[in-house]
Amino acid sequence: MMELNVTAPPAGSPPPGKEQQAAGVGILLQISMLVLSFVLGHVLRRKKFYYLPEASGSLLIGLIVGVLANISNTETSIRTWFNFHEEFFFLFLLPPIIFQSGFSLAPKPFFSNFGAIVTFAILGTFIASIVTGILVYLGGLTFLMYRLPLVECLMFGALISATDPVTVLSIFQELGTDMNLYALVFGESVLNDAMAISLYRTMSSVRSHASSGQNFFMIIVRFLETFVGSLSSGVGVGFTSALLFKYAGLDIDNLQNLECCLFVLFPYFSYMLAEGLGLSGIVSILFTGIVMKHYTFSNLSENSQRFATAFFHLISSLAETFVFIYMGFDIAMEQHSWSHVGFIFFSILFIGVARAANVFGCAYLVNLVRPAHRQIPSKYQKALWYSGLRGAMAFALALQSIHDLPEGHGQTIFTATTAIVVLTVLLIGGSTGTMLEALEVVGDDYDGPIGEQSYEGNNGYVAPSYEEGTSSGSRLKMKLKEFHESTTSFTALDKNYLTPFFTSQNDDEEDFGEPTQDKRRGGFRGHG
Amino acid sequence: MMELNVTAPPAGSPPPGKEQQAAGVGILLQISMLVLSFVLGHVLRRKKFYYLPEASGSLLIGLIVGVLANISNTETSIRTWFNFHEEFFFLFLLPPIIFQSGFSLAPKPFFSNFGAIVTFAILGTFIASIVTGILVYLGGLTFLMYRLPLVECLMFGALISATDPVTVLSIFQELGTDMNLYALVFGESVLNDAMAISLYRTMSSVRSHASSGQNFFMIIVRFLETFVGSLSSGVGVGFTSALLFKYAGLDIDNLQNLECCLFVLFPYFSYMLAEGLGLSGIVSILFTGIVMKHYTFSNLSENSQRFATAFFHLISSLAETFVFIYMGFDIAMEQHSWSHVGFIFFSILFIGVARAANVFGCAYLVNLVRPAHRQIPSKYQKALWYSGLRGAMAFALALQSIHDLPEGHGQTIFTATTAIVVLTVLLIGGSTGTMLEALEVVGDDYDGPIGEQSYEGNNGYVAPSYEEGTSSGSRLKMKLKEFHESTTSFTALDKNYLTPFFTSQNDDEEDFGEPTQDKRRGGFRGHG
Repeated sequence: MMELNVTAPPAGSPPPGKEQQAAGVGILLQISMLVLSFVLGHVLRRKKFYYLPEASGSLLIGLIVGVLANISNTETSIRTWFNFHEEFFFLFLLPPIIFQSGFSLAPKPFFSNFGAIVTFAILGTFIASIVTGILVYLGGLTFLMYRLPLVECLMFGALISATDPVTVLSIFQELGTDMNLYALVFGESVLNDAMAISLYRTMSSVRSHASSGQNFFMIIVRFLETFVGSLSSGVGVGFTSALLFKYAGLDIDNLQNLECCLFVLFPYFSYMLAEGLGLSGIVSILFTGIVMKHYTFSNLSENSQRFATAFFHLISSLAETFVFIYMGFDIAMEQHSWSHVGFIFFSILFIGVARAANVFGCAYLVNLVRPAHRQIPSKYQKALWYSGLRGAMAFALALQSIHDLPEGHGQTIFTATTAIVVLTVLLIGGSTGTMLEALEVVGDDYDGPIGEQSYEGNNGYVAPSYEEGTSSGSRLKMKLKEFHESTTSFTALDKNYLTPFFTSQNDDEEDFGEPTQDKRRGGFRGHG
Repeated sequence: MMELNVTAPPAGSPPPGKEQQAAGVGILLQISMLVLSFVLGHVLRRKKFYYLPEASGSLLIGLIVGVLANISNTETSIRTWFNFHEEFFFLFLLPPIIFQSGFSLAPKPFFSNFGAIVTFAILGTFIASIVTGILVYLGGLTFLMYRLPLVECLMFGALISATDPVTVLSIFQELGTDMNLYALVFGESVLNDAMAISLYRTMSSVRSHASSGQNFFMIIVRFLETFVGSLSSGVGVGFTSALLFKYAGLDIDNLQNLECCLFVLFPYFSYMLAEGLGLSGIVSILFTGIVMKHYTFSNLSENSQRFATAFFHLISSLAETFVFIYMGFDIAMEQHSWSHVGFIFFSILFIGVARAANVFGCAYLVNLVRPAHRQIPSKYQKALWYSGLRGAMAFALALQSIHDLPEGHGQTIFTATTAIVVLTVLLIGGSTGTMLEALEVVGDDYDGPIGEQSYEGNNGYVAPSYEEGTSSGSRLKMKLKEFHESTTSFTALDKNYLTPFFTSQNDDEEDFGEPTQDKRRGGFRGHG
């Protein structure tokens, strides 16, 4: 299989030795690019140069090195270390990123915006997928672009609706913005990954069973089954870990390593459990992250808490940066079918429209329910609309669609996705700072106390235009209010039953809301 | 390639979906075994049951699950997740273990025993390999055992001379033993891995170039080239990292994550650099570990120091435990040729003889040089002889020998190695506690101050028998004394030039010798 050559490879040496050396060179290159990305990101941040965020920098580094490797005719054995393997991405790179998203969530602003976030993520992503899919299908029918069957259009719609939180959020953190806007963007982009992947898989399975004639109802049921199943298994693993750490008594001296080892294994356990059950690992690990931070975390010893926070932050930073490098390199290496420039152009147009339908539509619904002082202002909606850049999740799903779809179709989708990823990461990533300033949502209240009052603060803009719409949707409003109340009652349930049951200390709760908690999240990439 | 099934796999689903689910199940099983190992190890340690150390427990868990999987006819797609891949072992599991060995080294006792350790590890391993090889060859000639060509016997001798530090050391830590004995066992077993792998590769390349007629001298030169080259590259990377962290000014607030990311990447960089250059990564990363701990570490911020220590400890604990599980599982799964029971029996005999030649021979040389109060007592020598159990390194090299050697030969070596690994891990691992008590080297001076004086303490047994041998070897003694002095002068060089140049604080040195430092090492597996 492989050989660690102790000597310079002699002429007659067998291939294995070369293979091992190639692995060394490949990994060495990757590590060097990682180091370069971190250093470049750090320098640019120091110089307050926001036009090239770290993620864009990493993508560019990957692209440049990829092009150079292409020109210089690097050996295939080294190249294989750079091909984007979806398996590697889904099994090893994605779990820490998603877990960290759930784990670093600042619960206060997240839960106080829970209804809105869920609306944007679940309903909104569904709308965006369908709108994109149908527009692309119509585009095909009218010969505007390459023609794909409806179900494939919907698959494309689903995969391209997965937005990437990394870049925009790091800039939000740098510039400082309102915590509620931050929570909306963050919560939406994290949850919508899970939604998009579930939708994509559902469509994919519909496609491969089109002959067996399943109806629309069955698809919805199956989707809900998966989503609820994954969510429950994730929450279940999280609660199990909370109980384990509450009663195992590992928070004493000397056992820190054992405690940390077990703590670190749980998220991965949750991911693989869901995968093994045929559910969605990403949904599962996200909720495990939220539950573990909310309950398990406070059962750890203080040292382990500090360690676990730094550990997941480190691992996810490495994984994120690596994903962008990896993606850049692979884009430079892969075969693309550039014959469908029209497809790319119209796709970009359509995803803009679809995201508008998602954001403005859902915001309208949310504002129906919220009291006047908590309305989502129109500039926040615009900021949210603008922050929808596409990243690694869309890329990985597109790469997979090559295997899932017939010859040519998958290629077209892949090329379009690649172009969209590169353009949005570079353009949106580079202009987010300017956009935030133009919309006047940049402020220093990020450092202030977190909570509702930020809306009444210097960003206390209330959109009056939506107030008049209430009469028309009064029945809808009633329904939504009920949902709103159920989220409020969840907070009470949490406070009175869950927290006392799953954690050892009750007074820990206040810790969750303190600013340092969010600073940590700020370091997600911001200080990385 | 793979598919995250959102639904229960339907009858007509394509293989990729199943593959992904199989990966989930496979990894889930591995994580469960890891958790089980940690918990079992913890419980046994609590109950002070030393007959089943953690490593043996992990090996047994792997074996049992492997046998069950064999009986229950587990699907091949799940099995592939358990096959021991040497590539995975060498590229991902071994580096953190070896780095941690270097990083957790308590420098005071290590450097004060440096001459002895180097003698045991370099000269001793060389002697042991040659003796084993020649005995096995003679055994073959006299029809005692399966007959192998001399160079293959030497390869076997080299790979079987790699001793595993994990199990014995964790027991040493639990029971508490003299720091000098600990340093000897630890230093020898860490360095001898590097030596054994280099020897194995050299022999392997000699074998494949037997026709081109290289002489013995060339082999030695090539071996030294590799060894010195790897050592220099490792030390070079270590010093580079020290300078980087000294001048980059990352030890300020907010940059902890960047600092940790870079710090964590360096060891791996060193490993891959050496591999990419065709040198030995394991030698390189070991010395990077020593240098980084000695110099770079003190340039980190306090938080990062705490984090880095816990991080490497965690990663190496996971890797070590996993290696034993992985090995156990693979042993239960692989095809073995049990027809050569004689080969196994005599091999065990011969490695005992070879280790005696190594330990007692080298101890004789060391005692020639040392002053009377620092002689290595005979009971320490016996303890050192006894602690030579074989682990994952021998196993991985044996597995590789299947590919390197002709049909049948590799199989025989592999089966013999497997048997030796299982027997030594279970038997020696289980009886180390009893042995240490029988030799009366168990004491509480582990907690006391570390240094030379332990020899004069309650273990101050001086072997007088060797004193009379000095006259016969007086010329040799002179040579060795010179070497001894050169190690002493290294300490001065370090104190006066290296430490001030590579670190920001000079007063950090004392930290290295404090007991907590070694407690941490104690936690290597002891508290894990």
